[in-house]
Amino acid sequence: MKAIEWLGDTLRILNQTRLPMETLYRDAKTYEEVAEAIEKMEVRGAPAIGAAAAYGYALGALGYQGEMEVFKEYMEKVQARLASTRPTAVNLFWALRRMEDRLRDLQELDDIGRIRQALVEEADKIADDDRRTNRLIGEHGKSVVPDEANILTHCNAGALATVEYGTALGIIRAAHESGKKIHVYADETRPFLQGARLTTWELIQDNIPVTLIADNMAGYVMQQGKIDLIIVGADRIAANGDTANKIGTYSLAVLAHAHGIPFYVAAPTSTIDLKVSSGQDIPIEERSPQELRELFGVPTSPQEVQVYNPAFDVTPAKYITGIVTEKGIVSSPYSVNLLKIMVRS
Amino acid sequence: MKAIEWLGDTLRILNQTRLPMETLYRDAKTYEEVAEAIEKMEVRGAPAIGAAAAYGYALGALGYQGEMEVFKEYMEKVQARLASTRPTAVNLFWALRRMEDRLRDLQELDDIGRIRQALVEEADKIADDDRRTNRLIGEHGKSVVPDEANILTHCNAGALATVEYGTALGIIRAAHESGKKIHVYADETRPFLQGARLTTWELIQDNIPVTLIADNMAGYVMQQGKIDLIIVGADRIAANGDTANKIGTYSLAVLAHAHGIPFYVAAPTSTIDLKVSSGQDIPIEERSPQELRELFGVPTSPQEVQVYNPAFDVTPAKYITGIVTEKGIVSSPYSVNLLKIMVRS
Repeated sequence: MKAIEWLGDTLRILNQTRLPMETLYRDAKTYEEVAEAIEKMEVRGAPAIGAAAAYGYALGALGYQGEMEVFKEYMEKVQARLASTRPTAVNLFWALRRMEDRLRDLQELDDIGRIRQALVEEADKIADDDRRTNRLIGEHGKSVVPDEANILTHCNAGALATVEYGTALGIIRAAHESGKKIHVYADETRPFLQGARLTTWELIQDNIPVTLIADNMAGYVMQQGKIDLIIVGADRIAANGDTANKIGTYSLAVLAHAHGIPFYVAAPTSTIDLKVSSGQDIPIEERSPQELRELFGVPTSPQEVQVYNPAFDVTPAKYITGIVTEKGIVSSPYSVNLLKIMVRS
Repeated sequence: MKAIEWLGDTLRILNQTRLPMETLYRDAKTYEEVAEAIEKMEVRGAPAIGAAAAYGYALGALGYQGEMEVFKEYMEKVQARLASTRPTAVNLFWALRRMEDRLRDLQELDDIGRIRQALVEEADKIADDDRRTNRLIGEHGKSVVPDEANILTHCNAGALATVEYGTALGIIRAAHESGKKIHVYADETRPFLQGARLTTWELIQDNIPVTLIADNMAGYVMQQGKIDLIIVGADRIAANGDTANKIGTYSLAVLAHAHGIPFYVAAPTSTIDLKVSSGQDIPIEERSPQELRELFGVPTSPQEVQVYNPAFDVTPAKYITGIVTEKGIVSSPYSVNLLKIMVRS
């Protein structure tokens, strides 16, 4: 399964809103279509959003019909549109900055054909890097997974959230591939059901034993001693280690702490945002009330009810046992150790 | 809105499985129909289950066509069938015991008409007691609700979970009626969505401000300082104060403790089971995997996925600030104080 696939002049996006019940694709030929797909969460997961936005940026250049004098201005509009889609995952801004930097390096060129080629190549490079990165996260992370471990995960930090393999599920895959007998508990992850729909589906396909629970069962399974460790993904990691991830992650971290269960975050270093000093400064997206008022168009509450629907929360660094990156596992003190790993090549 | 209504020879049960989107009734004329309605959660909530089972028992007698010699044996079958429906809420067994005791007192009678009348009267008395009890819980409980409080509740411990008024929502109603400006956050309460469907609906009808959140958002709203206290219902309270309630309650209690938020349980003394010494001995019902695999018949996960679906969890007494009963508020040490309140008339 591929969250996104570049087809030469089109970004094929696997629409994750109805998976696995319905398999729909969007063949995006414009940057606007990519922006829409990100907004509607047809493609989601911080690394996948980053790579999709990079291809969206390249599609902006591919679709440009105007004069070269105003091309730079136009590309700023493309960048702004793609950046406006979702506020929390920093990989989006990181990928767009990489694309902008590449374009800036090409400033002297007035050959639109060569610019287009260079931007597609840069997006390809971002996607390739993500594939490699996830394998490395898996390699580093599998060492913290005991044999016969019961692992709780939240949302989907899998192949569908990345270009391939996954971050949290990358570690789970690597542990499984190394012969460890593991079992996963997947939180269903309301309101979007990424756990129920995507994580269980990925793991079933890989023959990794998985049990689905409702989000509100996580504390009870911990209390019963059924969880050995927790691994989740991340949307943005502040300089002090505070980590924004899918809503519900914070509750899990507090519960893990109360039960003495190790709590790991798996993320590429592109998720680390040293410009943000603590979690308090990470913008948290609020999504439509309708996501809680109905499911797949079927009402689940009074339609007039007031709703609070934050899409993410922030887990303070003190609850995080380790952050598994492609460069190794970072642990406390995060302010020092995140800086160290970011400057290491 | 009435969860159940006795119509002379029929128990009208408001079917809560699709409320408020669809308002369906079951007019139960046999004890078997009442048993089915409890099993399928058409009527749910510990006090409502108790009252419904009492009327079910009376319906057993009303429908009896056999010889009086084997009537007692038959009523034991009726009792066993009703008792088999759900294992956790003790009010079910408490109400059936009251009915059995009443029947035993009538042992000398061989007048089926008088037996029937006495049993219906006893069920009416259980229902009336519950109405009165909930008002008293509200009266006692409103004192712990500060003005302008933001109250988090889980599941539905409202009018629909009782004969009238509610336990947790009874306190909220009483606080509102006394002029306190309060606001409620309602957990949606997967998988059955009692919070999203029933609690919000009840509160909207009473013009009590309510905001719906997903279960996994509770920790984040506490972290943001948005919650002043938590009030939940109960399905069974052990002699040491450990409390079984809807799955997810335990997670809330741990989160409340971590944030220094008072955590109250509201329940009639019929929910206190002194025969059970601690929460470890409370049987926890596991329900069908299908409840998590689909919603209103619409698939929400791969249909072959393994599911763990406990319907309740147990909150240790140490996390409970107080238990609000019709006889007053009980606090720690629960082993002593629950005993005291149970012997008080």
